[in-house]
Amino acid sequence: MTSHCFMPGMSRRAVLALASLLAVLSGPVMTGLSPAGYAHAQTAPADPLGSWNDGPAKQAIIDFVRATTDPANPNFVGPEDRIATFDLDGTLWVSHPMYTQVVYAFDRVPAVVKAKPELATVEPFKTVLSGDQAAIAQLSTKDLETIVSVALSGMSVETFRAETNKWLETAQHPRWKRPYTALAYQPMQEVINYLRAKGFRTYIVTGTIQDFVRVFAERVYGIPPEQVIGSADTLKFGYDAQGKPLLTIEPNLLLNDDFSGKPDDIYMFIGRRPFAAFGNSTGDRQMLEYTKAGRGIRLAMIVLHDDAKREYAYGPAEGLPNTRVGYFPQGLYDEAKKQGWIVISMKNDWKRIFAFE
Amino acid sequence: MTSHCFMPGMSRRAVLALASLLAVLSGPVMTGLSPAGYAHAQTAPADPLGSWNDGPAKQAIIDFVRATTDPANPNFVGPEDRIATFDLDGTLWVSHPMYTQVVYAFDRVPAVVKAKPELATVEPFKTVLSGDQAAIAQLSTKDLETIVSVALSGMSVETFRAETNKWLETAQHPRWKRPYTALAYQPMQEVINYLRAKGFRTYIVTGTIQDFVRVFAERVYGIPPEQVIGSADTLKFGYDAQGKPLLTIEPNLLLNDDFSGKPDDIYMFIGRRPFAAFGNSTGDRQMLEYTKAGRGIRLAMIVLHDDAKREYAYGPAEGLPNTRVGYFPQGLYDEAKKQGWIVISMKNDWKRIFAFE
Repeated sequence: MTSHCFMPGMSRRAVLALASLLAVLSGPVMTGLSPAGYAHAQTAPADPLGSWNDGPAKQAIIDFVRATTDPANPNFVGPEDRIATFDLDGTLWVSHPMYTQVVYAFDRVPAVVKAKPELATVEPFKTVLSGDQAAIAQLSTKDLETIVSVALSGMSVETFRAETNKWLETAQHPRWKRPYTALAYQPMQEVINYLRAKGFRTYIVTGTIQDFVRVFAERVYGIPPEQVIGSADTLKFGYDAQGKPLLTIEPNLLLNDDFSGKPDDIYMFIGRRPFAAFGNSTGDRQMLEYTKAGRGIRLAMIVLHDDAKREYAYGPAEGLPNTRVGYFPQGLYDEAKKQGWIVISMKNDWKRIFAFE
Repeated sequence: MTSHCFMPGMSRRAVLALASLLAVLSGPVMTGLSPAGYAHAQTAPADPLGSWNDGPAKQAIIDFVRATTDPANPNFVGPEDRIATFDLDGTLWVSHPMYTQVVYAFDRVPAVVKAKPELATVEPFKTVLSGDQAAIAQLSTKDLETIVSVALSGMSVETFRAETNKWLETAQHPRWKRPYTALAYQPMQEVINYLRAKGFRTYIVTGTIQDFVRVFAERVYGIPPEQVIGSADTLKFGYDAQGKPLLTIEPNLLLNDDFSGKPDDIYMFIGRRPFAAFGNSTGDRQMLEYTKAGRGIRLAMIVLHDDAKREYAYGPAEGLPNTRVGYFPQGLYDEAKKQGWIVISMKNDWKRIFAFE
């Protein structure tokens, strides 16, 4: 909403004052601070990025927010344009050893095969059912896509939601023995909350199926369904036995929200270019390029997984091995340096990684 | 955003009080009233639906808003779920004698043919160039889709925006000799503003290309780009001569946001079922069914164009002739009555139709 169109009786100064007042009032609602906690923050603000070590990455976030939210700054951005987009896997939560939606799809395969027994002898389902970990590790990206496509479709959107909730409650990551949703990165949670408190709208933009992410995004990241953009299957509109409309998920990918699909879908869903974007792999490259190419100050950040001890280490730094999940080759690292994207070192920039630590 | 997740330190009562305070503060910003006008409204509220005659349609809107926004009402709806969706053509502005995007596409044909001379001898472009109004009136729906698809694509999203703005500034409706954007229905503007002042988020959900609608939706209806859902072409991600990302519109329809495409896309973009929906033709049927089938009180309204004098008359009532544009057959009228959709009679329910009257 642009001020000149909708506040005809108000000066720009009055509009800004009102915007500030609204930000003050809506701040605690958005960030989850209690009124008492907020009143305290007024006099002696706690560090909103407390899980970050001081350094260029933390400073870049603070500088960006200062510049874009100060009405006196030439790079001030109106609240309507304060859009920040975050990749999910490897940027907001752990994606190793497998993307969480792939783990979920694997767990669903026995039920899927029970419903469609003919799949038991068909690849890649046969390999998944064999339990042969070496063979499973050899499945191609296309095989994995087929498994996700079949296992996460063929049901109503309500059934999908209920089933996903049930799985998230019981499934545990093999290393930490905790629910996958507990493996959100605390420093990134803080960035999301900080940006939101400063009037940014925070979006997840992910290659994972968006319906899957919408089940937990609000609870875990405070991000409502309409701010989750992801890969999406086509829907079939029909009616149930009572004649009520029914949306059924089909095994056909309509949106592949990865690589150039990210800026495409950001444009299609939001119609605005982000001022900040966060990623961790080649799948985020075009989103970071698109964000950084806009006018004024733009923040592009990329998470480098260089902490084998506390999480995982892979990618271009220090000759780390690369992997299919969260692929981060040297070329992307070079582009980050050349384009002025800020590389976040998990090892050096993050004081703590998980909330439970 | 659900209150129990994000305001842990606040009681439900405190949350509601804060929500009311925010609504009071944001009301004038959203509706465009000046602070002075708003202060006046505090003591002696002006009728927010002043262009509506008293009657069942106006009363249904008021009753719906009262029930869904009163915390003491069993049908209270939290602010996060207050979603209202509006069809555009024939619901929010005039769509006769041709959908505005089709008029725009026709106007672009000479330039398109100049750029691609081979189209001059190919149908349906040949007929459009002939200027033969009888032959043009006989073009099929598929022909019109082809013209829109070709004429509104093949350029960057920035060029599309600039070209559309230029056209909207000069093009005039043949009957009223005014810009198309002046032909927004004043009573519907009031419904949009009223709902927004009561904490609803208002979306346009249209069969028209969403990029076209986004150019004027904020200025005309106060609806920002991320709340415009419409038909959409695929995008091609590339780079310009300076190496900057460039999104080019391709002549391939990715989303056909009409009929069952409307609930599909509402689910895909918003992930929530609307509590109120407004339409005027068979293209809105599934959106109205989907909305009305939700739990609690839902408002489904359908505009009947029965005012030949002030606008147009077509559809099922009083044996009016039907037309391809805004098709409203008797079967849809019967379904509206059966399902409890409220039929809006332009003749009887609207005191005035346009702001300029």
